[in-house]
Amino acid sequence: MERTGRRGRTREPRQEHVAAGTASQLRRILPPIEPWPADRVAAVHEAALRLLEDAGIEFLSPAARSRWRAARATVDEASAVVRIPRELVMDALASAPSSYRLHGRNPARNLVIGENAVAFGLVSGPPTVEDRVHGRRPGNLADYRLLVRLAQSFSIVNYLGNQPVPPTELPAESRHLDACLANIQEGDKPWGCSAIGAERARDSVAMAAIARGLSLDEAMTAPGCSTVVNANSPRRFDGPMCDGLMAMAELAHPVVVTPFTLMGAMAPVSLTAALIQQHAEALAGLTLVQLTRKGAPMAYGAFTSNVDLKSGAPAFGTPENVKATLIAGQLARHVGLPYRASNASASVALDAQAAYESLFSLFAAVMGGANMVYHAVGWMEGGLVASFEKIVLDCELVQGIAEIAAGVEEEDVEAALAAILETPAGGHFFGTETTMARYQRAFYLPILSDWRNFQQWSAAGAPDAAARATRIWQERLAGFEPPPLDQAIAEALDEFVQRRKAEIAQGVLRPA
Amino acid sequence: MERTGRRGRTREPRQEHVAAGTASQLRRILPPIEPWPADRVAAVHEAALRLLEDAGIEFLSPAARSRWRAARATVDEASAVVRIPRELVMDALASAPSSYRLHGRNPARNLVIGENAVAFGLVSGPPTVEDRVHGRRPGNLADYRLLVRLAQSFSIVNYLGNQPVPPTELPAESRHLDACLANIQEGDKPWGCSAIGAERARDSVAMAAIARGLSLDEAMTAPGCSTVVNANSPRRFDGPMCDGLMAMAELAHPVVVTPFTLMGAMAPVSLTAALIQQHAEALAGLTLVQLTRKGAPMAYGAFTSNVDLKSGAPAFGTPENVKATLIAGQLARHVGLPYRASNASASVALDAQAAYESLFSLFAAVMGGANMVYHAVGWMEGGLVASFEKIVLDCELVQGIAEIAAGVEEEDVEAALAAILETPAGGHFFGTETTMARYQRAFYLPILSDWRNFQQWSAAGAPDAAARATRIWQERLAGFEPPPLDQAIAEALDEFVQRRKAEIAQGVLRPA
Repeated sequence: MERTGRRGRTREPRQEHVAAGTASQLRRILPPIEPWPADRVAAVHEAALRLLEDAGIEFLSPAARSRWRAARATVDEASAVVRIPRELVMDALASAPSSYRLHGRNPARNLVIGENAVAFGLVSGPPTVEDRVHGRRPGNLADYRLLVRLAQSFSIVNYLGNQPVPPTELPAESRHLDACLANIQEGDKPWGCSAIGAERARDSVAMAAIARGLSLDEAMTAPGCSTVVNANSPRRFDGPMCDGLMAMAELAHPVVVTPFTLMGAMAPVSLTAALIQQHAEALAGLTLVQLTRKGAPMAYGAFTSNVDLKSGAPAFGTPENVKATLIAGQLARHVGLPYRASNASASVALDAQAAYESLFSLFAAVMGGANMVYHAVGWMEGGLVASFEKIVLDCELVQGIAEIAAGVEEEDVEAALAAILETPAGGHFFGTETTMARYQRAFYLPILSDWRNFQQWSAAGAPDAAARATRIWQERLAGFEPPPLDQAIAEALDEFVQRRKAEIAQGVLRPA
Repeated sequence: MERTGRRGRTREPRQEHVAAGTASQLRRILPPIEPWPADRVAAVHEAALRLLEDAGIEFLSPAARSRWRAARATVDEASAVVRIPRELVMDALASAPSSYRLHGRNPARNLVIGENAVAFGLVSGPPTVEDRVHGRRPGNLADYRLLVRLAQSFSIVNYLGNQPVPPTELPAESRHLDACLANIQEGDKPWGCSAIGAERARDSVAMAAIARGLSLDEAMTAPGCSTVVNANSPRRFDGPMCDGLMAMAELAHPVVVTPFTLMGAMAPVSLTAALIQQHAEALAGLTLVQLTRKGAPMAYGAFTSNVDLKSGAPAFGTPENVKATLIAGQLARHVGLPYRASNASASVALDAQAAYESLFSLFAAVMGGANMVYHAVGWMEGGLVASFEKIVLDCELVQGIAEIAAGVEEEDVEAALAAILETPAGGHFFGTETTMARYQRAFYLPILSDWRNFQQWSAAGAPDAAARATRIWQERLAGFEPPPLDQAIAEALDEFVQRRKAEIAQGVLRPA
């Protein structure tokens, strides 16, 4: 390992791009792309504050409304609408940290969330899982574990999102325990947890602490899991999500507040309007985090795209999605918070469309200054499907864009001139001294790209990128070894899961 | 048509994205991405000047060497090496225009080459043509005409490169005449011509003038075709290319000097070294343009990528290719010239790899500040194949990135707030006033993307992006109508071609 001149990234030997290496978090050196001048960013921020004051946001959780009332917001219990004075928002932004750390059970996997650091996450949430060998099936624990293994095997994947697919064959009330256990047993990276209700959040935080041999108090200063809270756009937070948000904040674990604002469906057909709405919703949720616990870690999430106005179908990786993602980064930096974006695509097939939609959205996320890229690998069909092949494709895209965003190594000009003169005019550079010295790791080594010519490729059976992706995940899983887990910790986790399952079956609530 | 606030681009009604509309050249509003600080750009420029002075460049054309000698460069006739004093380079850069216009036979197709304008070109040069219905075959005039028609049908394609495929069944000495005639008959956009030898360049310039009803003198102030001159990297220009370069410059028609510098083959395994070499070679060719005719239009071309060091296979759309393309834009701006880059990919299949390699290189070209994007549509297999389906795929990529680079329309904040309040909290925006007013043209309408869900898509036969691309080019060609051509001009062109073919058959040279 070496740290190179202007690059902010610890560079691994190139061959580790294609093996399970140690974590290496991207530090983005290229400055973010900023489509809007500062005054338009400020104007949208101001408009969002007015929206919060004048029209307000619905909070369907009575506990959340109590908290707002205690903070002297204007709460209408009949409509559940909370009108939020701007001072509350400004205070919240002042008390929140501008960056934080998220910890893996292997400390080498710890992440900085914020600054110019970028963390890429495994897909979370699709109800269906798919690969090209076995087809489509509902989310289940066996596939859950395989998806985590595959993510674990790629060093470019920095964390697991919450539940790549739900284990739908297990009881809904307790499957989060099986999910957390799988995250810990199959991997050693930080992970996301469900915060639908306070109980799930508390269980997840507890398990992340046990996995690292920490007490809950100790974990509160060094969080091992993170959650995403979505607004029910437009302008509503549902009850369980509010309660999960508050439970996480109470435990000083990170909450990423992410409105999901598709223009034409959950937001107006207007980029400015959608961004005002997104910003207002995000600020409302984020303020509730700080009202719950001053200084709790949190991040600004954005997920603004558009629907096809002819069919109502959601669309991702569109120019509108790209612009919204770039500008949302400006809004996140305007309020001084870490920024979360996504890699999203609508394509049903693992084809050119899947690649270009994902690359457009990844480009926007990374060049928009995102610190967390949710669904960075594996998201298909607008989030309906987690795909094994898509994980492989996306790892290629993410590695490529990370390599670009990490900037350019500084090289000595005199040495460069000498390298040119190693070859006479009209000659070639195969086998020159510089070539021989550098050929092992000079260039990015792709995972999926096939650079054979037509004759060689045809003779090999003409495998397209989708077919090659199948072979790659099969090889990865065949060679997978779960990272070591201390025996005492493994037993403590099992004990916790058994106890909690029994309590849940008996309807026992955990103490807050 | 309307011109919108901060956008620099004349915006067409959205539906014209998918029909043959009038030309609308992208004006890039997003600032270029600049990976290097200014001092490194200046250091590479300085190193290139030293390379030109100390090691020099081979010019295999005796006429070119005469010109260098007359300008007081140091010429070694035995080795053909020309050592170029920096004053000659500086004088050339001072006399060259920073932008110029390239004219179509339809004035609505005229292009600005330079400033923040971007022009996208049809693939040029592959020996083989391919589509998914008829397979692969050598370049031929019938396919040549179909490729031009397809490019003509997409308004995002601003110009034709030189010969999308060579009409290999025709005599090599005169096929450039058939090619120019096809460009004019099947399209009305500006085009590129071959400058392999002076004769081809002069014939092409003459035909472009006839097509626009201009005398040669008149055309010299308003060029209707452009050429690319490649260096035979490293550090060599062959004889016919030099002669073509000088012929074009004499006629005040644009020359784009483009070293083709694959790291590991024609350039060292070092980004800095490859860029110094590229810069030196480009400056040498560009200086020869200005020595030939002070003030002649010209552009700085760059094509630095890498080979796979294990196999020697060329690679495109790699992180190295992206970085080189972004930095080459800085070098072009450093010397104050229009910048030409490319859309290149190595993929053999029209699959995810084709899409991501092309989108990476297009992203680098447009965000690197390129003014001309050669091979913007249709380039496959590292330039060995011109593909009908790839044209369709690339048009989608180019339109998408153009839509992003054109920036964001300014919208009224009060109207945006009102649009948010058209819907109650928790509601939806289908059918709101703003949605109904905007749904016709609010969002980018893709050509190729399929946003149907899995069930609808499966019921429709599960066509992947490649299959859809086939249907699209077939529909385009079935509906094609060549743009009108004045009868007298058509006859004059025929007469010119017949006369020149007879002269070439008899070995008659045209007067210089």
